[in-house]
Amino acid sequence: MYLAARWFPGHLTEMDRAECVELLDRNEVGRVAFGDPEGPVVLPVNHVMVGDQIVFRTAPRTAIANHVGTGQVSYQIDEFDPFTSSGWSVLVRGTAELVDGVWLRAHDLEPEPWADGRRTLYVCITPTEITGRRVVPV
Amino acid sequence: MYLAARWFPGHLTEMDRAECVELLDRNEVGRVAFGDPEGPVVLPVNHVMVGDQIVFRTAPRTAIANHVGTGQVSYQIDEFDPFTSSGWSVLVRGTAELVDGVWLRAHDLEPEPWADGRRTLYVCITPTEITGRRVVPV
Repeated sequence: MYLAARWFPGHLTEMDRAECVELLDRNEVGRVAFGDPEGPVVLPVNHVMVGDQIVFRTAPRTAIANHVGTGQVSYQIDEFDPFTSSGWSVLVRGTAELVDGVWLRAHDLEPEPWADGRRTLYVCITPTEITGRRVVPV
Repeated sequence: MYLAARWFPGHLTEMDRAECVELLDRNEVGRVAFGDPEGPVVLPVNHVMVGDQIVFRTAPRTAIANHVGTGQVSYQIDEFDPFTSSGWSVLVRGTAELVDGVWLRAHDLEPEPWADGRRTLYVCITPTEITGRRVVPV
């Protein structure tokens, strides 16, 4: 069995920041990455964009909630087509902080009502770097 | 605009390790995460499984090649269906090392011939933990 190398740098082209932000706008699921004492953790969340800031929800006492604000984070989205060996990936690097209902409403986002007693947290990632690349079909 | 919370823990069920490894076997694209001095980095690659070890290719002097062996890594795969609000995600945590052609052939993997002068590297992640979860449609 051969190990394919579709993401091999020879077939990659860079995307500019505007294209990356447009892809973040058009997609609703991505992955937040942060470090805990055992290394990097990657977990999927649903996001919305506020300009070039990424906002998502989590719950208290989750791994995400425990590590927000303790260091750098990343946010990643991608899309692949295995049949044409093409796709793209966007990586946002930045810092994360909790935001409250006042902040959300000021940015045209409605916090959802607290469901069955759960207090939900809203996390905002402010990018320091946004990069992306496309895999061009060979 | 409301911010959906499909990955909110209330709708999640855990998958056991066997199911996670089966999903890794059935999929060919995932994301490797590692730390550099600016925090976590998440990049897509194509993988194959050798038992519960994850093998993928990279090139010398890439971010991945520079950071393999310097700490803990993660490998993540997922699949979503936005229409039914369902999906799953698998997270592998472990250590990564470079492996050579002898190792690959001993595990029934053929290293690809060096294309146009590029020396390719093969990375093997040995899991210390494999966890996964499904989002059950509400």
